[in-house]
Amino acid sequence: MRPVSVVGIAQVPVEKTASVSLRKLGAVVLNMAMEEAGVDRVDAVFVGNMLSDELQGQKHLAALIADEAGLAGVEALEVQAATATGAASLRMAYLAVASGQAELAAAVGAEKMSAGVATPALSKALDAEIEIPQGATLIGKNAGLMRLYQEEYNVPNDGLAEFAVNAHRNARNNPLALFRDKKISKRDVMRSRVIHDPIRLYDCSPICDGAAAVILAPTEVARAFTSQPVRILASSVATDRFRMDDRKNPLALEAVQISAQKAFVQANLNQEDISFFEAHDAFSIMACLQLEAVGFAAPGEGWRLAAEREISPKGKIPIATMGGLKARGHPIGASALYQTCETVLQLTGRAGKNQVKKASVGMVQSVGGVASTVVTHMFSV
Amino acid sequence: MRPVSVVGIAQVPVEKTASVSLRKLGAVVLNMAMEEAGVDRVDAVFVGNMLSDELQGQKHLAALIADEAGLAGVEALEVQAATATGAASLRMAYLAVASGQAELAAAVGAEKMSAGVATPALSKALDAEIEIPQGATLIGKNAGLMRLYQEEYNVPNDGLAEFAVNAHRNARNNPLALFRDKKISKRDVMRSRVIHDPIRLYDCSPICDGAAAVILAPTEVARAFTSQPVRILASSVATDRFRMDDRKNPLALEAVQISAQKAFVQANLNQEDISFFEAHDAFSIMACLQLEAVGFAAPGEGWRLAAEREISPKGKIPIATMGGLKARGHPIGASALYQTCETVLQLTGRAGKNQVKKASVGMVQSVGGVASTVVTHMFSV
Repeated sequence: MRPVSVVGIAQVPVEKTASVSLRKLGAVVLNMAMEEAGVDRVDAVFVGNMLSDELQGQKHLAALIADEAGLAGVEALEVQAATATGAASLRMAYLAVASGQAELAAAVGAEKMSAGVATPALSKALDAEIEIPQGATLIGKNAGLMRLYQEEYNVPNDGLAEFAVNAHRNARNNPLALFRDKKISKRDVMRSRVIHDPIRLYDCSPICDGAAAVILAPTEVARAFTSQPVRILASSVATDRFRMDDRKNPLALEAVQISAQKAFVQANLNQEDISFFEAHDAFSIMACLQLEAVGFAAPGEGWRLAAEREISPKGKIPIATMGGLKARGHPIGASALYQTCETVLQLTGRAGKNQVKKASVGMVQSVGGVASTVVTHMFSV
Repeated sequence: MRPVSVVGIAQVPVEKTASVSLRKLGAVVLNMAMEEAGVDRVDAVFVGNMLSDELQGQKHLAALIADEAGLAGVEALEVQAATATGAASLRMAYLAVASGQAELAAAVGAEKMSAGVATPALSKALDAEIEIPQGATLIGKNAGLMRLYQEEYNVPNDGLAEFAVNAHRNARNNPLALFRDKKISKRDVMRSRVIHDPIRLYDCSPICDGAAAVILAPTEVARAFTSQPVRILASSVATDRFRMDDRKNPLALEAVQISAQKAFVQANLNQEDISFFEAHDAFSIMACLQLEAVGFAAPGEGWRLAAEREISPKGKIPIATMGGLKARGHPIGASALYQTCETVLQLTGRAGKNQVKKASVGMVQSVGGVASTVVTHMFSV
């Protein structure tokens, strides 16, 4: 298997309502990433989008975006793994280059959630025969996890609040973040309205529009495209029992454990080697449980990393370094590509005020549904 | 890039209405294919399904099918390319094994179209901003192509009828085909009702339920799993201008040309080397245009291959050897996997009464939308 590197990145600002269409978002960011890599063609385009079936009435998005970007003829396929969809498209682009079937592959994530009511469509990440008829939604399931966690480990009510505070603090230094002008305190979090008890407004990532893309090439030729290539050290996917209720310990997130473990083995690294961790903080509780399942904290101790500000860019294990899903925004199919772009910026010393000192290895992990599918990537210069 | 082989196949009977759920269809066929390969685990599962968003209200199908099959933990992702979705899942499984990231990968196609009205959901393969508001549907677009073709080349009204006759004749010897008991004549085709002028009932593949799966392994170890492995000689994807109206010559199907050409180069073969061609005969006109764009016939001459019965198992270029999309059935996400299973049966001398003599190379080609995406695979023992 030949090593693969990121040789071009692009992100558009995350917005509540983008002024252009979904296809245009995808095409623009694809062309921007190609320009950054200095190429006018790629061999394959893998598109990540979760909601266009419902919100745009559009399937077949990969060929459509490829054409819109002026690349008609190119290989173009769409990949999905519910809320981990963006990461799945990165994995496919990685496989295409690693296999030798593509010399240059693009992973493009695009989502325009403003086009309709996204919440019911998002719930289709759950079991439509068993969970949805019972009234389950993604936010409801995360609320259940949060309550269980707080009770199991006697976590104070405001124990998870610092996840949002950290994300919003970091977003203020990211000009592309949705909430780039919003400073919040722990008190703001605890005073925000209850969305689905015990989840409050600031425990949730926002509904928004956005797109991001990366260009991958074989590591051995990466410097032909950029002076600052970033290697992909590991790429892995794992699943869990699909329904949370079928799991022995719903707080343990086995797919996170398996996917992280596979990635650590592939990269020949362990937890101490990770400079920062771009977690899937769609809900604060999910980021907290990821910190534990990856092994950055013992079970029941993840919230303390936040409470003690060890998740800040200067802490032991920085997360959401450019705002995270919480404050940069979570346009589903694009989120992992934003995280990958941000990871590249961190590893190449371009993260500005949020720069993690001596950042050498970045880890990005995306969660599909309630961690039924988990995708992990690790990067290094 | 390491060579990849098919080491296990499985198909369930195509039915108008399957008695089991979509997830069960997928899980059953996955377990059957694993049993055929003699394995109790795989490293990755790639699921092809086009319509579960609308018809089952279910996203996140790959993890769900993996769990249902008893494989929770495994890598599982979903791939889409509209009506070429099944072939896209095969391509992903191929990349996973070719790259070295998986030793055993499954491609699973499953579709349960009986659960609702499939036609509007199928139309989302077209441009939802421009074509769908104009009233376009897949069948309407194919009807336009058929009329254009007949006028351009002075094709007699019944010029394409033999495509359906051949498919139905072959399906009678395939116990898994939807229309295994239906014998039709050219006259039956021409007397069947007009669905979308000039397309008649027998020019269209049926709405149905089905599932098929294949297991892939590195060629160098393939014989550990089966005495009859089948090598994948080529795997390729190409796109065209997304909308038919943007193409210089809508009858030329450029994505078919590019995808086939890439596959011929990868396999180091040409048209004369192909023993049989599993075309995407969702509509007779599409199979006809594929024969021309791949280079089996000159432009305007594809229909003659059918009319002269050169597409029968004993002809120059057999197509739909086990019934094709037309008469075996076209459960969208599963179709290319059925075709792959049938190709394996042909190449290993297990195709029964429809056995193509001296079959050495099989070609399978799937069409997404109106040939906006085309996926080609070639196989040999």
